[in-house]
Amino acid sequence: MKSKTAPWIFTASCPSIIGTVDVVTRYMAQAGNYIDEIHSFDDRESGRFFIRIEFLPQNANFSEEAFNAEFTERAAEFSMDWSLTAPNHKQKVAIMVSKYDHCLNDLLYRFRTGQLNIDVTVIISNHPDLEDLAKWHGIPYYHLPITADTKLEQEAQVRELIEQYDTELVVLARYMQVLSPSMCEYLDGRAINIHHSLLPGFKGARPYHQAWEKGVKMVGATAHYVNNDLDEGPIISQGIQVVNHAHYAEDLIAKGQDIERVTLFNAVKCHVEKRVFLNGKRTVVFGG
Amino acid sequence: MKSKTAPWIFTASCPSIIGTVDVVTRYMAQAGNYIDEIHSFDDRESGRFFIRIEFLPQNANFSEEAFNAEFTERAAEFSMDWSLTAPNHKQKVAIMVSKYDHCLNDLLYRFRTGQLNIDVTVIISNHPDLEDLAKWHGIPYYHLPITADTKLEQEAQVRELIEQYDTELVVLARYMQVLSPSMCEYLDGRAINIHHSLLPGFKGARPYHQAWEKGVKMVGATAHYVNNDLDEGPIISQGIQVVNHAHYAEDLIAKGQDIERVTLFNAVKCHVEKRVFLNGKRTVVFGG
Amino acid sequence: MKSKTAPWIFTASCPSIIGTVDVVTRYMAQAGNYIDEIHSFDDRESGRFFIRIEFLPQNANFSEEAFNAEFTERAAEFSMDWSLTAPNHKQKVAIMVSKYDHCLNDLLYRFRTGQLNIDVTVIISNHPDLEDLAKWHGIPYYHLPITADTKLEQEAQVRELIEQYDTELVVLARYMQVLSPSMCEYLDGRAINIHHSLLPGFKGARPYHQAWEKGVKMVGATAHYVNNDLDEGPIISQGIQVVNHAHYAEDLIAKGQDIERVTLFNAVKCHVEKRVFLNGKRTVVFGG
Amino acid sequence: MKSKTAPWIFTASCPSIIGTVDVVTRYMAQAGNYIDEIHSFDDRESGRFFIRIEFLPQNANFSEEAFNAEFTERAAEFSMDWSLTAPNHKQKVAIMVSKYDHCLNDLLYRFRTGQLNIDVTVIISNHPDLEDLAKWHGIPYYHLPITADTKLEQEAQVRELIEQYDTELVVLARYMQVLSPSMCEYLDGRAINIHHSLLPGFKGARPYHQAWEKGVKMVGATAHYVNNDLDEGPIISQGIQVVNHAHYAEDLIAKGQDIERVTLFNAVKCHVEKRVFLNGKRTVVFGG
Repeated sequence: MKSKTAPWIFTASCPSIIGTVDVVTRYMAQAGNYIDEIHSFDDRESGRFFIRIEFLPQNANFSEEAFNAEFTERAAEFSMDWSLTAPNHKQKVAIMVSKYDHCLNDLLYRFRTGQLNIDVTVIISNHPDLEDLAKWHGIPYYHLPITADTKLEQEAQVRELIEQYDTELVVLARYMQVLSPSMCEYLDGRAINIHHSLLPGFKGARPYHQAWEKGVKMVGATAHYVNNDLDEGPIISQGIQVVNHAHYAEDLIAKGQDIERVTLFNAVKCHVEKRVFLNGKRTVVFGG
Repeated sequence: MKSKTAPWIFTASCPSIIGTVDVVTRYMAQAGNYIDEIHSFDDRESGRFFIRIEFLPQNANFSEEAFNAEFTERAAEFSMDWSLTAPNHKQKVAIMVSKYDHCLNDLLYRFRTGQLNIDVTVIISNHPDLEDLAKWHGIPYYHLPITADTKLEQEAQVRELIEQYDTELVVLARYMQVLSPSMCEYLDGRAINIHHSLLPGFKGARPYHQAWEKGVKMVGATAHYVNNDLDEGPIISQGIQVVNHAHYAEDLIAKGQDIERVTLFNAVKCHVEKRVFLNGKRTVVFGG
Repeated sequence: MKSKTAPWIFTASCPSIIGTVDVVTRYMAQAGNYIDEIHSFDDRESGRFFIRIEFLPQNANFSEEAFNAEFTERAAEFSMDWSLTAPNHKQKVAIMVSKYDHCLNDLLYRFRTGQLNIDVTVIISNHPDLEDLAKWHGIPYYHLPITADTKLEQEAQVRELIEQYDTELVVLARYMQVLSPSMCEYLDGRAINIHHSLLPGFKGARPYHQAWEKGVKMVGATAHYVNNDLDEGPIISQGIQVVNHAHYAEDLIAKGQDIERVTLFNAVKCHVEKRVFLNGKRTVVFGG
Repeated sequence: MKSKTAPWIFTASCPSIIGTVDVVTRYMAQAGNYIDEIHSFDDRESGRFFIRIEFLPQNANFSEEAFNAEFTERAAEFSMDWSLTAPNHKQKVAIMVSKYDHCLNDLLYRFRTGQLNIDVTVIISNHPDLEDLAKWHGIPYYHLPITADTKLEQEAQVRELIEQYDTELVVLARYMQVLSPSMCEYLDGRAINIHHSLLPGFKGARPYHQAWEKGVKMVGATAHYVNNDLDEGPIISQGIQVVNHAHYAEDLIAKGQDIERVTLFNAVKCHVEKRVFLNGKRTVVFGG
């Protein structure tokens, strides 16, 4: 079996209008870019077009600069938001945590073994507990305590770290703090949060206890982009676990953690593989 | 492979106290009832004990009357609610529907092929649409139209039919009417409803449209007992279907119907097999 | 919410070579066909390209004939196998059954309610048992008994019916006969079989009994195209059900039937929506 | 919510005969042991009875010795194999690995965070690669290389370690060596293996490549007890992952690893919670 050559990834979205596909695929053919896989979708409600292409350049003199130079003008005609991602480009990821380590442990394992094509450059926490885990993986760990009074200062420090490490994606891996509206806005579209419940049910505090009170037969988790409406950001992925009457709230929490880490991993993987597009309050996820 | 002899089913619940198991199992041994399967559970929060036993009488002169006579006194000591169900006893079931037929069709198929050990004795609807389906299965169909003004009279007619057909269980198989409080109370604990959403999310009208607006990646269904808080009755079973961005609200409805019918079937099957116990606002479901 | 206009569906496959996408999408743009959705995939092992497009013609004078006339030449250059499917084209489907009715019942329900965009034109069986079910749906039912000695004659009769009813797809919905090699060849690529096990495990007789002997914790089903290697044809879809120690072989059969009918429905749906492509001994299934 | 007091666990199995339940439950009542949960099952094919009880001693002078002294005679009458497990007894577990670390990493995470109530006392490998991971968790790591010629000596060393560390359970967490028949016999019933496929399909080498060749739509994993028929030991748990045409063999391997680690964790958890009973070539698993 031949080993797969990692492809370049092209993504774009723009208003729905005839010719959007053609402007992309015609350029690919002309530029000698062999298309390995296409997903496109037209949302008839939002009137928006989305496309993701994996391709293998055939011309020896292919370059990102040349692509940009040649395609920019064509894209402009369609008001296209587009991006080009080099094979094996590793997004620089900052992870924020509190004390729970199940999501962090999983992300670091995936990172360490190459299952997530990312570069975890920094871990930021309002608690000191998970520093050892960060250290073993050789990742800088910043302990930035927070109180109601110091939230804005702490968030300013967080922002500085995010910038200092050229962060492309922030992952809130059970960071148990409500972000300020300005922080939410700052992270809009480039931060993924894991919510420990199947939204939109059980918002608010202690969702697993709420779930137990109701006698649910399933618990779930939701990974979504952060926006200015914290737990209501566009959903990327969801997962569920079956439970029963013999599971008390503490058992639901344990069961929930398993599905939280899987759901968050799926969302981060889809994001870094450029499979996720914002579409108003919803997302388009290709081949997720 | 030996064919399985259908067992008698004994179920009981009572306040948690030492000796509850012993009073049951000792009697079974003394009476010569061979125990095939036991599930018991003690809810430490509600302080209530639940047990379900499948057994095969070994004494030729076993009788329901003798069991009742002999066990009643022992049970009283523990304030035990208990019941005995004969092998292959078929509960008399009334099904209520409106126009959607996916749940009805599935229940009738299961009934016709013996997968549900029930006797569907009557179908009641506020619409005439599903009469043919009922007829083909040889089941009486009553069309009782309803308006805001006639709700109470119609419900009175429904009650009469329920009584006339010695109904043990009412299944609301997408009966698209909000029951009056008195009707809810009348049906308390002996009617199962299917809610077209994963409660507690998306209560109220058009839940699939709400789900689409939120861009959920899963839709679900909830089967629960009717009580005086219609969509909040104790949950028996839940199910989910994975969906994606390419599913519009009408697709979610179609996907949802598949999971509704499976979820309702599971709940009815558990109920008639005496696997479900009310436990306050929750349920205990053994081996469901 | 706007109601979705049913799209035309274009599918094609050909050897992998640069320009395959462009020849399709350029023509679509030139012909004024608005592309709603694309899936394409290049199998690096088989060196074959596959594409499926949903599109909405924008020109009033769009016609199937014009499309054919204009695209045939372009396709020839790439040795492209392609097809065009009109919105809501209903494939003519022949269903073959024996005595089990769970798959037939489900397919007919989906057909009757429009969930499967097919036209079930004939039902053929080697037993008389399911005639009533066919009749209620108003579908001709042919009882063609079969013995070891009469297999070839019976198959000849079956072929005649298949031709007489202009059959596009044959569905073996638990038709419990091994087809002759010539019949397999005749049906190659246009017949879907449901195998009552998760292939490749438990081939041969009484797979559920084999599964029980092994104490499996899951049973499955496989829907695949018929080819000259009956139970080894290219897989379209698979499904599983969780089971446990309390399930005897007869329970596994019942559990298995539930997953058989869902799996077969999924396969037929994908096929008639033109989502499935043969790819040697495997399949490509887009958005299934 | 009250915190749950960890219960004592009693398990037993014996030939099916009337009185088996009573002898247990009567003793529990007499001894003042409050029963929290019972599962019992009678296998009508093997003619064997299985029971698992969680109980909370109410007598201050409860002791394991007293239980043994008092119950042994009663059990003997029924040829009962039985065991008593103290609350939070931690089984001493030896883990054997080769180079793949996904299962080891998961087990160690569960061990470290208390999700698995075990004591991982030693890790044994035929490769040096995973020593760092062992060290970070503070667990002794023995590198015992193996060749065809040294298999028996190496296995003798492994046995010594198993004995030296008072091992109660051996977990083969992707230990990529075929054990000798004598080693299999030595480990019979007290070693759990994870097989990287949904048995009984795809036995033998490179199962994921076999699966890819067949174009399967699901890959699975099987955790089972080791017996003298290596990949055919009694199955404890199985899991599956959905895959599609875009997954090459290397993708199936990655997908498979996710389900391997979950499946192995489930099996180990059920084993240490005393939920699993050998039943000939099959198992009984209560509440798994």
